[in-house]
Amino acid sequence: MGKEVDVSTLESGGAARDYVDPAPAPLVDVDELGKWSLYRAVIAEFVATLLFLYITVLTVIGYKHQTDANLAGTDACGGVGILGIAWAFGGMIFILVYCTAGISGGHINPAVTFGLFLARKVSLVRAVLYMAAQCLGAICGVALVKGFQSGFYARYGGGANEVSDGYSKGTGLAAEIIGTFVLVYTVFSATDPKRNARDSHVLAPLPIGFAVFMVHLATIPVTGTGINPARSLGAAVVYNNSKAWSDQWIFWVGPFIGAAIAALYHQIADLVVDIHGRTWMRSSSTGV
Amino acid sequence: MGKEVDVSTLESGGAARDYVDPAPAPLVDVDELGKWSLYRAVIAEFVATLLFLYITVLTVIGYKHQTDANLAGTDACGGVGILGIAWAFGGMIFILVYCTAGISGGHINPAVTFGLFLARKVSLVRAVLYMAAQCLGAICGVALVKGFQSGFYARYGGGANEVSDGYSKGTGLAAEIIGTFVLVYTVFSATDPKRNARDSHVLAPLPIGFAVFMVHLATIPVTGTGINPARSLGAAVVYNNSKAWSDQWIFWVGPFIGAAIAALYHQIADLVVDIHGRTWMRSSSTGV
Amino acid sequence: MGKEVDVSTLESGGAARDYVDPAPAPLVDVDELGKWSLYRAVIAEFVATLLFLYITVLTVIGYKHQTDANLAGTDACGGVGILGIAWAFGGMIFILVYCTAGISGGHINPAVTFGLFLARKVSLVRAVLYMAAQCLGAICGVALVKGFQSGFYARYGGGANEVSDGYSKGTGLAAEIIGTFVLVYTVFSATDPKRNARDSHVLAPLPIGFAVFMVHLATIPVTGTGINPARSLGAAVVYNNSKAWSDQWIFWVGPFIGAAIAALYHQIADLVVDIHGRTWMRSSSTGV
Amino acid sequence: MGKEVDVSTLESGGAARDYVDPAPAPLVDVDELGKWSLYRAVIAEFVATLLFLYITVLTVIGYKHQTDANLAGTDACGGVGILGIAWAFGGMIFILVYCTAGISGGHINPAVTFGLFLARKVSLVRAVLYMAAQCLGAICGVALVKGFQSGFYARYGGGANEVSDGYSKGTGLAAEIIGTFVLVYTVFSATDPKRNARDSHVLAPLPIGFAVFMVHLATIPVTGTGINPARSLGAAVVYNNSKAWSDQWIFWVGPFIGAAIAALYHQIADLVVDIHGRTWMRSSSTGV
Repeated sequence: MGKEVDVSTLESGGAARDYVDPAPAPLVDVDELGKWSLYRAVIAEFVATLLFLYITVLTVIGYKHQTDANLAGTDACGGVGILGIAWAFGGMIFILVYCTAGISGGHINPAVTFGLFLARKVSLVRAVLYMAAQCLGAICGVALVKGFQSGFYARYGGGANEVSDGYSKGTGLAAEIIGTFVLVYTVFSATDPKRNARDSHVLAPLPIGFAVFMVHLATIPVTGTGINPARSLGAAVVYNNSKAWSDQWIFWVGPFIGAAIAALYHQIADLVVDIHGRTWMRSSSTGV
Repeated sequence: MGKEVDVSTLESGGAARDYVDPAPAPLVDVDELGKWSLYRAVIAEFVATLLFLYITVLTVIGYKHQTDANLAGTDACGGVGILGIAWAFGGMIFILVYCTAGISGGHINPAVTFGLFLARKVSLVRAVLYMAAQCLGAICGVALVKGFQSGFYARYGGGANEVSDGYSKGTGLAAEIIGTFVLVYTVFSATDPKRNARDSHVLAPLPIGFAVFMVHLATIPVTGTGINPARSLGAAVVYNNSKAWSDQWIFWVGPFIGAAIAALYHQIADLVVDIHGRTWMRSSSTGV
Repeated sequence: MGKEVDVSTLESGGAARDYVDPAPAPLVDVDELGKWSLYRAVIAEFVATLLFLYITVLTVIGYKHQTDANLAGTDACGGVGILGIAWAFGGMIFILVYCTAGISGGHINPAVTFGLFLARKVSLVRAVLYMAAQCLGAICGVALVKGFQSGFYARYGGGANEVSDGYSKGTGLAAEIIGTFVLVYTVFSATDPKRNARDSHVLAPLPIGFAVFMVHLATIPVTGTGINPARSLGAAVVYNNSKAWSDQWIFWVGPFIGAAIAALYHQIADLVVDIHGRTWMRSSSTGV
Repeated sequence: MGKEVDVSTLESGGAARDYVDPAPAPLVDVDELGKWSLYRAVIAEFVATLLFLYITVLTVIGYKHQTDANLAGTDACGGVGILGIAWAFGGMIFILVYCTAGISGGHINPAVTFGLFLARKVSLVRAVLYMAAQCLGAICGVALVKGFQSGFYARYGGGANEVSDGYSKGTGLAAEIIGTFVLVYTVFSATDPKRNARDSHVLAPLPIGFAVFMVHLATIPVTGTGINPARSLGAAVVYNNSKAWSDQWIFWVGPFIGAAIAALYHQIADLVVDIHGRTWMRSSSTGV
């Protein structure tokens, strides 16, 4: 105990060779606080979440204003459409996970951090610092968009998550739970050390990005799609609308429940694994 | 005989080294029934098919209701379009095959299971359990959508597969046969042990997902695109419409014929392979 | 001389280790004609081109009829759009190259075969057999669509390539030349033995599929995009319209010129390569 | 000094083994000027940028003229949409980086060259030659489109970058800075020698292409999206419109500032890296 497992090893598969699980991360790791790699990871999470919100909310708002664009001219349908918005969310997660996977593990989402914390992949300290950085980054990213679009920003809903008319709060909550489950389930599959031993670094980001893309296709009409509390908080803070605030809890409770179920499902499903005739039990306390 | 070939070896390429075929799976494997890995695989198929139907049918139904969404506002074209629906089906198969490939082989479709059974890649017991899990998962997935969308669900066709007006039942059947052939042919190419020895784990899911995407682009106007009997059954059970039921046989007979032709084509084409001047015959009974 | 270089080695990188070029393919190779691998490759090209035309032309024709589809209902914009059509062409090439790369090299296009023949990657015999199989496959693929869509097929232009109103024949020809150059240039980059030594099997198909996607985005408004003489011939034979026939030469001359320029560009650019300080000249006659 | 670091080693990872940085490129390298590999790289940059502008601007202009196309017929929404345009830019960068990565490093953009020059990955001589080739290639590519589309070219804005109505010049400049930061940050992540040691050749182009796709989704309504001075210059020279010229500085100053910030961010973040418990300092002067 007290022995740190750097998140980056989960990705690089360097120390963790074939089918050897890293030891669970401690809750509090004093050594970790003295390392530059932790602060570098926190900065990377801040910058990545800022860029994520900047690009995606700019896409959401900008596509209403599209008819004035020099490229669109006479196009009645204007803009990139809901499909383009779903691509913006999924595609940004793809490139940002790709860019930060080796530095911070590429969370960019408090629900992902929460799920990996429950699975003891990151320490409590790291989890709290990541979440703070993500929320701050998200607020800054949306603020940039508001600065750019001024009038248009408020007029087109500010990119905020709200349960749409015609759907109950329960439906919105359920949509967030299942949507986040899809995402965090994919994250666990993509960062599984058994798999990382064989895969190269870049492959994990693609299915994770696609998971975000898919959930947006399905739930933009229901809630605008949160599945990322930092994204929802950032838009609510900058937009500062009463409906966005009164629905805000849904975009925290839902994703955290979804992430917890994914962590539980992954844990149980993986408890006993039979590969090539060799049965082995994972010990949650000894690991390596 | 009686020696089990775990499906996971087809994917991991661990035991199956360069150009060595695994022994054909037995029809009934008593040992297999005592292993946790089988039940874990069945659970994975259930969960994956549930998520597949939930996301895709929610996309289909939700895109009609899109104009009320907080993001879409004034957009006359609304929604993600047929292109977005095709992406939802293909993209979900990509991520779900990615997530379950190492656990169940990533079938998520009775036609795929049937094709791999015919090729003796999975035992009869496993095939039957997979298909039951897939059908049950599909029903639960569509039921979730109906719970979420209530009124909209029935109004927009329930995501059920039916032969469209203007097309004969023969055309619908042929479209399902060829479409499933494209999918299962890609599955065979992607899970070929000769190929797996060289490729990493994540690569196979991408062409398989694209095959599903492509077939949807082409045949949504004809049948809504089945090529997956569990998907068609799930929607029919929950929607419970007479037209959906009277056309249901097409979405079982078509995919199973298509899968059988793909298995046959792959078997014949692969019977004699000449690689680097070394000719070898595959023996269907000795394998390794 | 007389010594065969199997196309499959270009892809598998098995015999062709780091930076060793295979010997140029002979013009006529008598031994090759006695091998099952040649006929298997020809069959694979036939089936792949048939599936390519079936899915893509069905997408083109079907998207007009979309408003009757059970999924589309009230959508004014209907169908998958030109973007969906471009995806159909590019995505099918991705999966078909993936599926046939190890069997036939994954050409599915007489212009690609012609370019690889000029670069002495395939023998004359193989090139001629491939082109015949591709053209026959394309005709069968389009005929299937006509059988499915009957009335709609002729009404919506039969998927045939023609120079659009407002463009000269010279513009159409130039568009085909440059478009095919983009495709065949990507094919040469993706099948370069220097690169294959390091890459896995599945990666080459993705950029090749994207090249087809890109050219369709750009030139569908100009010529409907050929860059594949088999595709253009198949649609012309089945549609049998005078305009499609009078423009047909453009879709053979253009792609063949484009492929020849790509082969020439690749040959010159690669003649002298300096890697890691070691300069080596490619000898066109000694190779291995 | 005087010892050349070939750009191709950044990609191939041949000489640069695990976690060893190549020595910084010298400002002026006399030896380099005598090597064919430099001129081959410059030619590759010219051809790639020409193809990039040809395909993308043809997509932009052509999609207005789409209703006359033989495929579109009665489609009110016509064309590939803004989403299709964003795909054209991102997808072309994907395939062109794939094709030229081993030859020139795959810049195709003066801002990328500038960022890599600041990070001492390329010499000053190489950077200047690349930028000249890129600008010349871009002009030729747009000129080809003008030749093809004649009347339509000028009518639909010539694909030129301008700050859209309703946005200030400051907003346009900021959008270009952040957009280029996203791109060059991804380029640095994808070409990091620590990463290249593990990844294969083809993977880097995909996230780089997606970065371009994402930025276009977000900023087409604001500036038409430059983030590539050669692209903006090429369109301005051929379109030759006063607004395009008066805004031109934004599309040079913005991308260069964005690239510089990305180089700085990457440099600082990477200065101290802790991997698997081993702390090491990068020396900017000794390298290997």
